[in-house]
Amino acid sequence: MINLQCDYLEGCHPFILQKMEEANLNKTPGYGKDEYCRSAAEKIRQACRCPHADIHFLVGGTQANLIVITSLLRPYQGVLCADEGHIACHEAGAIEATGHKVICLPSENGKITAAQVEEICQMHFESPIQEHMVQPGMVYISFPTECGSLYHKEELTKLSQVCKKYCLPLYIDGARMGYGLTSRKNDLSLADIACLSDIFYIGGTKCGALFGEAVVIVNPDYQKDFRYLIKQRGAMLAKGRILGIQFETLFTNGLYFSICKKAVEQAEILRAAFLRKGIQMYGESSTNQQFPILTKKQADYFAKKYIYETWRPFDQTHTIYRFCTSWATEQQEILMLLEDIENMPLE
Amino acid sequence: MINLQCDYLEGCHPFILQKMEEANLNKTPGYGKDEYCRSAAEKIRQACRCPHADIHFLVGGTQANLIVITSLLRPYQGVLCADEGHIACHEAGAIEATGHKVICLPSENGKITAAQVEEICQMHFESPIQEHMVQPGMVYISFPTECGSLYHKEELTKLSQVCKKYCLPLYIDGARMGYGLTSRKNDLSLADIACLSDIFYIGGTKCGALFGEAVVIVNPDYQKDFRYLIKQRGAMLAKGRILGIQFETLFTNGLYFSICKKAVEQAEILRAAFLRKGIQMYGESSTNQQFPILTKKQADYFAKKYIYETWRPFDQTHTIYRFCTSWATEQQEILMLLEDIENMPLE
Amino acid sequence: MINLQCDYLEGCHPFILQKMEEANLNKTPGYGKDEYCRSAAEKIRQACRCPHADIHFLVGGTQANLIVITSLLRPYQGVLCADEGHIACHEAGAIEATGHKVICLPSENGKITAAQVEEICQMHFESPIQEHMVQPGMVYISFPTECGSLYHKEELTKLSQVCKKYCLPLYIDGARMGYGLTSRKNDLSLADIACLSDIFYIGGTKCGALFGEAVVIVNPDYQKDFRYLIKQRGAMLAKGRILGIQFETLFTNGLYFSICKKAVEQAEILRAAFLRKGIQMYGESSTNQQFPILTKKQADYFAKKYIYETWRPFDQTHTIYRFCTSWATEQQEILMLLEDIENMPLE
Amino acid sequence: MINLQCDYLEGCHPFILQKMEEANLNKTPGYGKDEYCRSAAEKIRQACRCPHADIHFLVGGTQANLIVITSLLRPYQGVLCADEGHIACHEAGAIEATGHKVICLPSENGKITAAQVEEICQMHFESPIQEHMVQPGMVYISFPTECGSLYHKEELTKLSQVCKKYCLPLYIDGARMGYGLTSRKNDLSLADIACLSDIFYIGGTKCGALFGEAVVIVNPDYQKDFRYLIKQRGAMLAKGRILGIQFETLFTNGLYFSICKKAVEQAEILRAAFLRKGIQMYGESSTNQQFPILTKKQADYFAKKYIYETWRPFDQTHTIYRFCTSWATEQQEILMLLEDIENMPLE
Repeated sequence: MINLQCDYLEGCHPFILQKMEEANLNKTPGYGKDEYCRSAAEKIRQACRCPHADIHFLVGGTQANLIVITSLLRPYQGVLCADEGHIACHEAGAIEATGHKVICLPSENGKITAAQVEEICQMHFESPIQEHMVQPGMVYISFPTECGSLYHKEELTKLSQVCKKYCLPLYIDGARMGYGLTSRKNDLSLADIACLSDIFYIGGTKCGALFGEAVVIVNPDYQKDFRYLIKQRGAMLAKGRILGIQFETLFTNGLYFSICKKAVEQAEILRAAFLRKGIQMYGESSTNQQFPILTKKQADYFAKKYIYETWRPFDQTHTIYRFCTSWATEQQEILMLLEDIENMPLE
Repeated sequence: MINLQCDYLEGCHPFILQKMEEANLNKTPGYGKDEYCRSAAEKIRQACRCPHADIHFLVGGTQANLIVITSLLRPYQGVLCADEGHIACHEAGAIEATGHKVICLPSENGKITAAQVEEICQMHFESPIQEHMVQPGMVYISFPTECGSLYHKEELTKLSQVCKKYCLPLYIDGARMGYGLTSRKNDLSLADIACLSDIFYIGGTKCGALFGEAVVIVNPDYQKDFRYLIKQRGAMLAKGRILGIQFETLFTNGLYFSICKKAVEQAEILRAAFLRKGIQMYGESSTNQQFPILTKKQADYFAKKYIYETWRPFDQTHTIYRFCTSWATEQQEILMLLEDIENMPLE
Repeated sequence: MINLQCDYLEGCHPFILQKMEEANLNKTPGYGKDEYCRSAAEKIRQACRCPHADIHFLVGGTQANLIVITSLLRPYQGVLCADEGHIACHEAGAIEATGHKVICLPSENGKITAAQVEEICQMHFESPIQEHMVQPGMVYISFPTECGSLYHKEELTKLSQVCKKYCLPLYIDGARMGYGLTSRKNDLSLADIACLSDIFYIGGTKCGALFGEAVVIVNPDYQKDFRYLIKQRGAMLAKGRILGIQFETLFTNGLYFSICKKAVEQAEILRAAFLRKGIQMYGESSTNQQFPILTKKQADYFAKKYIYETWRPFDQTHTIYRFCTSWATEQQEILMLLEDIENMPLE
Repeated sequence: MINLQCDYLEGCHPFILQKMEEANLNKTPGYGKDEYCRSAAEKIRQACRCPHADIHFLVGGTQANLIVITSLLRPYQGVLCADEGHIACHEAGAIEATGHKVICLPSENGKITAAQVEEICQMHFESPIQEHMVQPGMVYISFPTECGSLYHKEELTKLSQVCKKYCLPLYIDGARMGYGLTSRKNDLSLADIACLSDIFYIGGTKCGALFGEAVVIVNPDYQKDFRYLIKQRGAMLAKGRILGIQFETLFTNGLYFSICKKAVEQAEILRAAFLRKGIQMYGESSTNQQFPILTKKQADYFAKKYIYETWRPFDQTHTIYRFCTSWATEQQEILMLLEDIENMPLE
């Protein structure tokens, strides 16, 4: 069986394990105050062209989201988010458990627009009974989105502007950041991301690490006391260096980008192959996740050799499925799948 | 410099890294539903002689504490705890952040007694205005305690009985469980721990793992839906197998116990050496942490060659310090320190 | 100006003030343990034909909702609710502030159906990654709904059945309960409400009291320790008797029902008058709130003599408005408005 | 029986009921935006000589405390408080339920000192692992304290200074403010209180109102968006005018002060009588609560004619009791008690 179910099936890029082994018996201070973390943070600051950013290494994405959002909001504020957003759907109420409402906006192709943010803010702040409603307190987006699409520079710039207008921090969930930045459709650099947002995280778990997400706090207004919240929410790793070592490795010689780029190219080829067969694709993913819309018969055909994810029903006779590539997907797996797409039943 | 500041200075036991490397490119399901976790859980159940226990692998101790406590308490209940307890002092208010009060009991040698629990429960449940106070909802203890001491079987049995009497679940924080179980002063087995408590965790981070704590839910009443809370608090590792691999390794051929035992023996020797010189020790630690009470002059003497932890002031002229051994402490480090203790200034 | 903006414009029914005066210098125990509360609770139990219900008197509706919901849910559970529900829209995130997600279901005429609850439960509990989502933990409905409509006995019975099937407590927000029970379209008695739900509250604030809501806990499983939460959420009135006196008065000689019935009849006449003029009404309110859909010109016409509430935009040229009657609305106010409806501009 | 158990046994001062009756059928806007609240706020601002203070009327003390504290703290901060403080002991964990730790300081005569605050802040902010501990975020004191004692101007000035030094807002719980301000031992005016604190509340419930506390936000930094929290915590009274009417009445012609002064004078006489008989008094209360330390025989003697509160055990043979006067205590009740004190058993 070839497993393309998700992008966290394996361990980590071999360079990371090698570095961990070399460092294994070195004694370092705990809680992320070690040399590996310092060096990794410096490399990320350089990659972001953001010398004054604060960098914190956390273990996972839900953890990063809940800590960042708790840190940014006042108790009566909520976070604006696409209705398909990860925090709205797949974090078991982690944000609500910190006391904050996730305010869902209808999304198209996984994205929300500056106009939507403008509208909800205007409506809220002009209402005579605004204090009876949750105050919009920040904007959360994902890059890439849940369905693999990308905000383009123009869209992100507009979002950034409307956020500034209403004093809402803009936070970008970059669980799959590497796959977004290396897409051929992408026109944003890491420096652009840093310039247009207040805070974001660079995902490691899905992009070559064993685990780990690097939170980048660009806006100095939000840097104060962040480590308290990391500790309080149970996210301060005693041996923090394991995070430092991983990101240090990924941000040396562009490893993070090269391994993600390969996966995105593999996914592009799959997408093209499905489209060539007339298969409709859900969303406009130009990254490592592809969502063919298949009949049961077609799905069963692939199920003989492939493990994939059932995304959600599409219509009476079709379902959306997800095929994922990753830094670890092998070229021959893709070639076999291409052949099978070529021969797939047409309905 | 010889570093004895804490027991999380290094990476992990080499067997673990080796196992991680072997498994690195295997594809497994995410979120702890893999074969490594299954096997590790089974080995732990056997070690606990508790075939029906639920086992969950979490990343760190504060995370384990806050999830377990949230899971056990009703919103108006608090957790009884020694005033020196980790949740009371060094978790940045993690428990309060879940909405619960940590109700401190004065402790002796780091421990609380069944009589104290009995007294506070009696007082509470007999009060005509009990609903104006936080209801005692569970008991938290550490084994070993913060200052390295141990509950003996008789003490734990009595605590367990009073907890049952008042329907309070008894939870044991075992961040250094391995060092406790292998102490020469200890009369409790892992099976006793499982038998006398409702829920506990076996610490990995400080006992040979890169990170990781194994929560053992003995009492079936508290097993339901625990994974929801793990996810909600950002503690569900996507590549959960990294935790499984570590505990699988530690609980194969008694590795967990043999590496901890060595550290405890080293610490015992240090303790004896200090006592021989007439140095007063804080608490009655029979585990891997030792707390000599030193003058500034004595501390400076050691500071030339050793890194240790400043614990807290003792009196006008003395301070409590902590020297820690671990699974990774080398025998020659201990020998050198023994010699230096032999030659230390006497005041 | 005639003010029909809402149903909490005045103080309280004169009988209540009179009773408060008579009792003013009596000395009673605090915190709701007085004779007035005891007697009021007994009268409510009788009105509900529910001799074993627990009754608690709270100050306001948001307070009642947040306490009840906190009391019923486990930390990882959410509350199912119509998308127009009060807790979803107009309580400033009070429920999220207790850590719980409000899971919105699309509503028709303000109501949700048993089928919707069934569907979301089935979907959730069959999902292999259910712990990544918020678990449905209870159902919240309003009677009457936000837009004045009513659940009929058959609908409520079905909702009750599906709730039982999935072990979800059913909670009814009865802020305007009196106006619902006395509607000509209503086929439910207070005893039916008690029989079909697990917990509900009978609204006082909008139905003749200065303030106050009577929470009725029918299901004994949810009765334990409720007073702790009342105290903890700052809702335990020191002079609780003020609540007891009010409900004692309202539930003597059917006062609660007679004063609400009058208001509903006044509203019915208004509705009929609007419909006669060809004005479309929003929703199918058969209670004391009526929602004509008016052009700007029509709204301006009424604004000269009447204060009403702007509800929300309907289409490009129309807006939904709310006219409310209450226990205190005078007959001559209604007569004047009827005449003005008769003469209103037709577009 | 003469009931001196507490100061919330009766309804309210008759002037208040009279005013409520006069206003009963007036129609006003809801949620505290009415003319009565506006006028009451203005009178309080004048009494505080603080023209720019924000005034909010809440229903009860626990409610006021939890809203103010939530409003002032960041999620990782705690509130410094005397170990006998109301929020530490008798609010059922209301503060912890908002996510914050109550950091107890040992108190003498119910009071904490500037030196204690200085010490804990210094210790915290100099610690290398400060983020592992709860950050001191504000100071809470009561005036008068739980045991009836008073901060003097010099003490409060020093507390205020140390708070400013560490940027900690100083909050004063004034549940019995009226009894404190009118004590003969008091050297603080309401204007001093406003000048030396950042936020405080003036208690109504125990000082002549049916219920109600007036929160005064002196420091403009803490005024923003306070109404959101009031609504979110279920504390926004629909008919807010009932609070306005009460405080408007109490702050007209010095009613608040004159009725409290009478009660304090009555209590002083009782204190003197007990002391004359050689009875030891707990604490140095110069306000309306007095705490004689009595033997069982003495307590039984009084129990024949008086209802009083059992405070807590004092030693093997003595218990602390509380006798309270209030705005409603009658002079003849005091005279009778004086006579009985005169004739009480001496052991």
